[in-house]
Amino acid sequence: MDLLVIEKVKQAQTILKELNLDAWLVFVRETSAMKDPALPLIYGEHDLTWPSVLLITAGKGSYAILGRYEAVTAQNLGAYDKVIAYDQDIKESLQEVLLSIQPQNIAVNISEDDVLADGLSHGMYLTLHKLLEGINFQDRITSSINLISALRGRKTKTEVERVKNAILEAQIILNKTIDFAQPGMSESQIAHYTQDLVLENKLDFAWTPSNCPIVDAGPNADVGHNAPSTRILQRGQILHFDFGVKKDLYCSDIQRVVYFLAENESEAPAPVVEAFKIVRKAIQNAFEVIKPGMMGVEVDAVARKTILDAGYKEYMHATGHQVGRIAHDGGCLLGPAWPRYGKTPFLKIEVGQIFTLELGINLDEYGYVGLEEDILITETGAEYLIDPQVELIIK
Amino acid sequence: MDLLVIEKVKQAQTILKELNLDAWLVFVRETSAMKDPALPLIYGEHDLTWPSVLLITAGKGSYAILGRYEAVTAQNLGAYDKVIAYDQDIKESLQEVLLSIQPQNIAVNISEDDVLADGLSHGMYLTLHKLLEGINFQDRITSSINLISALRGRKTKTEVERVKNAILEAQIILNKTIDFAQPGMSESQIAHYTQDLVLENKLDFAWTPSNCPIVDAGPNADVGHNAPSTRILQRGQILHFDFGVKKDLYCSDIQRVVYFLAENESEAPAPVVEAFKIVRKAIQNAFEVIKPGMMGVEVDAVARKTILDAGYKEYMHATGHQVGRIAHDGGCLLGPAWPRYGKTPFLKIEVGQIFTLELGINLDEYGYVGLEEDILITETGAEYLIDPQVELIIK
Repeated sequence: MDLLVIEKVKQAQTILKELNLDAWLVFVRETSAMKDPALPLIYGEHDLTWPSVLLITAGKGSYAILGRYEAVTAQNLGAYDKVIAYDQDIKESLQEVLLSIQPQNIAVNISEDDVLADGLSHGMYLTLHKLLEGINFQDRITSSINLISALRGRKTKTEVERVKNAILEAQIILNKTIDFAQPGMSESQIAHYTQDLVLENKLDFAWTPSNCPIVDAGPNADVGHNAPSTRILQRGQILHFDFGVKKDLYCSDIQRVVYFLAENESEAPAPVVEAFKIVRKAIQNAFEVIKPGMMGVEVDAVARKTILDAGYKEYMHATGHQVGRIAHDGGCLLGPAWPRYGKTPFLKIEVGQIFTLELGINLDEYGYVGLEEDILITETGAEYLIDPQVELIIK
Repeated sequence: MDLLVIEKVKQAQTILKELNLDAWLVFVRETSAMKDPALPLIYGEHDLTWPSVLLITAGKGSYAILGRYEAVTAQNLGAYDKVIAYDQDIKESLQEVLLSIQPQNIAVNISEDDVLADGLSHGMYLTLHKLLEGINFQDRITSSINLISALRGRKTKTEVERVKNAILEAQIILNKTIDFAQPGMSESQIAHYTQDLVLENKLDFAWTPSNCPIVDAGPNADVGHNAPSTRILQRGQILHFDFGVKKDLYCSDIQRVVYFLAENESEAPAPVVEAFKIVRKAIQNAFEVIKPGMMGVEVDAVARKTILDAGYKEYMHATGHQVGRIAHDGGCLLGPAWPRYGKTPFLKIEVGQIFTLELGINLDEYGYVGLEEDILITETGAEYLIDPQVELIIK
């Protein structure tokens, strides 16, 4: 029995009804080689080897149709009303179930806009199309983007609790790392300290370990998704972290910033103080405006405007993304209307979603002033899931 | 610099020429959420966040076109002649490069038959189609199945060495586990012992940890891809393992079988001895016949016939699969002509490929007699990468 999976399969049935969808069909194979990102939500951490269908319907039960050797795992999960095992070909079992259910529309994991609703490969799409053609159902396919967006986004109580714990662990580790960091150390050296703490605490990394944490020491750091380098942190410079852990399958994602006083300084230089103030203000402005029903692009605009109004250069990324089983958990994005983000900035913000708020200002002389907080959308607005960094840390 | 990646990108260029392909285009995004299984071969363990193209051509260089924040990682890799960074939309950079190269055909990761050559999602396919339509290249798309099959399959020296090491580690751990296992222990208890050794040795699991190892104690064990249960191993029963580790990114996959003597026994009962002999014989027959140029289905037939001729029930899976970065490494399969395997049993066996040979007989009274060996295809035949289990282990 996997209670979290049972909870999410039931939630999927509720959302199907709400969206007037009859069925959600997830078609996968050899998921150890490539995994539909929707699968863990409704099948836990198990893999499926042979062509397999998980079919969740609005009012006609849930089905797992899969290779015989994997039927016991599906049964033990306790989330599917019927587990149907086959030996040579899924065709007959799948067509029989669909004919008995007669769904008028079938949500399938296809989306140009959201990677998390696009788990069906093109080859599998071609196969599925033929299977549906056999019973003349091929025109009933529709995208599952809204279903998956709601299912991933609307965190159950258990899920919020797990993300909170992942944030707490990341914060503790980052605080220890900030205590540890000293001028003269390289980015790599600092990152290894963080990574050792992750492993010691039996946590997973929220993203590729080689870039987790991202550590940017001083000016000219290649801010972005790059591995820590041999660059040496010096006095009179900024040290910036982007870091998250995965605990009990759920992620956190935060950024923190520290200034190392030069020999002759007793406080941070004015440009650093000012940039920090504006970055913090931009995040707070987004936090204060965000509420259910808004589009992501509207929230992004508020934060972006704060930076531009203060005369700083625009940051070339979204103001926030959702966090969940994956650090970049897809769905509605607090992003600008750039082609690379597709339609995701225009999706509606919903209660129960967890977003990052993140942005920064690059100071040529000192380094990157970047912050990232994690927030939960509530009925009336949002709440921080972390104590936001409201003061520049000085060392 | 990632020497293994540089080696594989160069190998891809050789294979492109051999297959008369002008270019291989790998189109990905947010690979931390869903990763094209071809990506690690040509980009290492790094992720790509925004829509990105890795373009490897037969004679006109190699290109990484990606979001600005990830350009440094691509440059540091040292495997691409040109790294082109974009901010808002990949369209212009991609079309410009393609127009300059003028490939007459473009291999893309689309395949109904092989999951490992099917890394392009349907949504991304739709986007790519539009991008190519813009320069009237949309009809030049072809499947990369043969390219990827050769690229994954033909192991370089470094790769063979890595798989060998992964096999050695798995064998050592399994031997220790066999020493540890005693009647009265549960499948789970035995599996946890194995898993602790994997973690202690800083290895990864070759597949989902919950099923790695698979442990089958006695009759009525649910043989297949299922997690070890609370079933208690008893005297007069068979204990069967299916296990592999990942070391330095490469996997092993082996099966071993042990018989626990009943109180009054001094040797294993005749049906167990006989079944072991036939399973071993079937694997050896396949091993002796296999050589480059054969189709997988021909090798499968030899092993399958050995089992059927001896009067046992047919095993309902393939006789062997390739092993590499993934335990089920795709491409040519030593499998029967069943629809669920698509065309993979009809692909040709090539020098440098590493296959499992695996099959078993289920004895209602004693348990599952299953073996799995790993072999390397040579110019003239094959060699074992492990000392095969030629005697039933008795405890």
